[in-house]
Amino acid sequence: MSLVKLYDTTLRDGTQAEDISFLVEDKIRIAHKLDEIGIHYIEGGWPGSNPKDVAFFKDIKKEKLSQAKIAAFGSTRRAKVTPDKDHNLKTLIQAEPDVCTIFGKTWDFHVHEALRISLEENLELIFDSLEYLKANVPEVFYDAEHFFDGYKANPDYAIKTLKAAQDAKADCIVLCDTNGGTMPFELVEIIREVRKHITAPLGIHTHNDSECAVANSLHAVSEGIVQVQGTINGFGERCGNANLCSIIPALKLKMKRECIGDDQLRKLRDLSRFVYELANLSPNKHQAYVGNSAFAHKGGVHVSAIQRHPETYEHLRPELVGNMTRVLVSDLSGRSNILAKAEEFNIKMDSKDPVTLEILENIKEMENRGYQFEGAEASFELLMKRALGTHRKFFSVIGFRVIDEKRHEDQKPLSEATIMVKVGGKIEHTAAEGNGPVNALDNALRKALEKFYPRLKEVKLLDYKVRVLPAGQGTASSIRVLIESGDKESRWGTVGVSENIVDASYQALLDSVEYKLHKSEEIEGSKK
Amino acid sequence: MSLVKLYDTTLRDGTQAEDISFLVEDKIRIAHKLDEIGIHYIEGGWPGSNPKDVAFFKDIKKEKLSQAKIAAFGSTRRAKVTPDKDHNLKTLIQAEPDVCTIFGKTWDFHVHEALRISLEENLELIFDSLEYLKANVPEVFYDAEHFFDGYKANPDYAIKTLKAAQDAKADCIVLCDTNGGTMPFELVEIIREVRKHITAPLGIHTHNDSECAVANSLHAVSEGIVQVQGTINGFGERCGNANLCSIIPALKLKMKRECIGDDQLRKLRDLSRFVYELANLSPNKHQAYVGNSAFAHKGGVHVSAIQRHPETYEHLRPELVGNMTRVLVSDLSGRSNILAKAEEFNIKMDSKDPVTLEILENIKEMENRGYQFEGAEASFELLMKRALGTHRKFFSVIGFRVIDEKRHEDQKPLSEATIMVKVGGKIEHTAAEGNGPVNALDNALRKALEKFYPRLKEVKLLDYKVRVLPAGQGTASSIRVLIESGDKESRWGTVGVSENIVDASYQALLDSVEYKLHKSEEIEGSKK
Repeated sequence: MSLVKLYDTTLRDGTQAEDISFLVEDKIRIAHKLDEIGIHYIEGGWPGSNPKDVAFFKDIKKEKLSQAKIAAFGSTRRAKVTPDKDHNLKTLIQAEPDVCTIFGKTWDFHVHEALRISLEENLELIFDSLEYLKANVPEVFYDAEHFFDGYKANPDYAIKTLKAAQDAKADCIVLCDTNGGTMPFELVEIIREVRKHITAPLGIHTHNDSECAVANSLHAVSEGIVQVQGTINGFGERCGNANLCSIIPALKLKMKRECIGDDQLRKLRDLSRFVYELANLSPNKHQAYVGNSAFAHKGGVHVSAIQRHPETYEHLRPELVGNMTRVLVSDLSGRSNILAKAEEFNIKMDSKDPVTLEILENIKEMENRGYQFEGAEASFELLMKRALGTHRKFFSVIGFRVIDEKRHEDQKPLSEATIMVKVGGKIEHTAAEGNGPVNALDNALRKALEKFYPRLKEVKLLDYKVRVLPAGQGTASSIRVLIESGDKESRWGTVGVSENIVDASYQALLDSVEYKLHKSEEIEGSKK
Repeated sequence: MSLVKLYDTTLRDGTQAEDISFLVEDKIRIAHKLDEIGIHYIEGGWPGSNPKDVAFFKDIKKEKLSQAKIAAFGSTRRAKVTPDKDHNLKTLIQAEPDVCTIFGKTWDFHVHEALRISLEENLELIFDSLEYLKANVPEVFYDAEHFFDGYKANPDYAIKTLKAAQDAKADCIVLCDTNGGTMPFELVEIIREVRKHITAPLGIHTHNDSECAVANSLHAVSEGIVQVQGTINGFGERCGNANLCSIIPALKLKMKRECIGDDQLRKLRDLSRFVYELANLSPNKHQAYVGNSAFAHKGGVHVSAIQRHPETYEHLRPELVGNMTRVLVSDLSGRSNILAKAEEFNIKMDSKDPVTLEILENIKEMENRGYQFEGAEASFELLMKRALGTHRKFFSVIGFRVIDEKRHEDQKPLSEATIMVKVGGKIEHTAAEGNGPVNALDNALRKALEKFYPRLKEVKLLDYKVRVLPAGQGTASSIRVLIESGDKESRWGTVGVSENIVDASYQALLDSVEYKLHKSEEIEGSKK
């Protein structure tokens, strides 16, 4: 099977998303990662649209890429000017990219309404913009904007626009589902029609407004298309572009098409997270292939089956895309979940060991009280260690007091916490402020302990979630707090449940600190 | 075209997601919303798996639904027992649902490895479990687990399992892509083969592990399938189930298939957000059709085109699914939204009134700071009243102090609040305890005010939700508190946002009390 070329537009179309904006340095770093993983074309920006994009093309030339080609994006020339006088086309050439990709109008309605020129004139725009670029740039691609909508409105004219691009010797003609509304069965039919008229290599560019962008891209490849455009994590305007993190593994592992190497594919999850990180967005847990939950199993039946034969409930081996199987613990889980979890944490445990049963009973009882260990795996690990007797008590808290005070109608309340801890016989009594009671308590706790355990300075509180659990018969309602903490290497979740939100938060904070201390000790232990 | 039946499994398969757990009361509330929007079948749970699900089926029978049928989920009988002796099948019948859906094995590999019985025995399991249920339950559906993987491994056997279900007169045979790994073109081919052998009505149940669940479901319908299973927002294990919020509008608006009414479709976005809210999850901004960004346009060419002809960059009119176009300049749709809301609250407002614009600006500014008025309509109503000058200040809070104190390692912390309020020139200074800082503050506030406004005794705090909002550029992260309060007649939601959780809670508590006082006054006014 022939090679499918991957064209990434995270740095251009991806930044059209409402919440995404990259610095030039971010773009350079992402370009390197895309190159490493084997993306063939990296669209860096639209040099005609803003100075940041001009800077990118200047800077990227100083970088050494292993194989990727850099593409610059723009539009066909304006009406009534020759290509060599068109500002937009000139800036494209000045950017000195390996490839130029320009878009033009396919849909007669857009030609009339947006360009306000004749249909014939639009064909000339397409033809001579491409012809001019072909003479000045190594490779030239044509994005047929709104191709599928245009084809549905006026198939003859839509095909004529592609023919104009073909006549100008565009190296690839990319069919765009710009509004993202095309249904997969329509797309297949239309591509089959196009292939009756066009012999030039075809590409596909889809958007996710119907949640069909990935399927549409894969269909296009199975219909003979040789270039796929998309973005990492599906970033893009409105509902996003086609997600390359889902397209690449499908091409390679399911459709057996050549695109990137096996070793490169194993870096897919890392790439996904790297791009989230630079965009300052939380990764989507449930993302196909690369998400934290993509290979996470909850039900007891599933778990015991997975352990014997992963293919029973996994569509592929997560390691192939750099992900891994995770076993969740919940009220649906059985003994096999506990054992699998223990293994994950390198804790030796026997299924016949009465401790296993004790932990299971413990969990069930805690879950009845409202605990939830999904997302609180650090608390779960500590619970296992306590049951197994491998838990170490690093400190004890003798007491604390938190005060929130509002002195005037227009003044914000201030929070202050005092705390007394005991570490190896020594008592530390201290106080801290915070922008809320939990933050103040967290600050005071860590201030008191950092003296003895300086590594706690690395810990940051990343997320804090609260849920009120309704009252059972004769009991008050309780509050569940989930805290996510992190240091430079990793993130961990802890949980606390109490009628009192401060108490619940306090439990989760204590677990977080204890987890960090255990982790540091293990790392130091292994270095010795 | 014939009707496509919608089968929602948010309450069963949806809760298999790592981060989702609904209370029985949540499930009842969601069931009502699903019924209102016109979902035909609501799968409430697996009564054989846990007591929470048994409670749901008991409670839902007391509720009046307008059209939806309630389905209970389970599996085929165990080997070596007759159906009438099978615990799982018995609990299904005892739940007294309108429909039973049971799953069975299609894949020979699973029959050998998971069930450890012969292929022949599995066919008997399927047949007589269904036959037994058919005699005891009005409607019976058969979920062919791992159908597509099973078919690829052993097509003859896979078809045989469907035939067993057909022979037992199952009302619908649902083809499941349990592992979510099936490519759309494979799925189409396989369904065409199945239809050569099976005449019973067919359903589809897909998972999103390849990001193709929606496309696969739509393909299935275009291949003649009459029942689509999925969840709201695509909640579900691993990468989720097929997202009904994307499937429904595609069926209705793009494929012109009958499923729900036009008015019901306009509630789609509300339904999506309601389910996110009860799951205590942030809505996905970029979600197709219903997300905040789904019809959001970033400046320039797109915006002016959109304003003249929305179809230029929108695949459908957002109003059809209860969403709206968002443009970053002069937001006309925003204004009409405000007017619609005002109408809902019986507040007279003119679209040309500068107050309308003032409210709009106010809301935008507050939303930027993290406020959210979905689920906090009482706060929204107060905001409108303040802008219109119809708001009355019943009291002012001069100051408060909340103390949480833990005196000993094994003692729970105690919370105490003091507060000073002013009502019509009189100052009241009082204190109260509580099982947490917010509860203590709530108790103190109401204790201070009840002297003047005895009707506040009727108010109960029903729900309390907290979410941490990520930090913007150069700002600390803030906390959003949503409070639900109620009296004998009604329930109302209020919101507060601050860096400090006590402050955010205080704002929401104040709004709740003010809302109650306004409401009481209006009722008393109308009695005079």
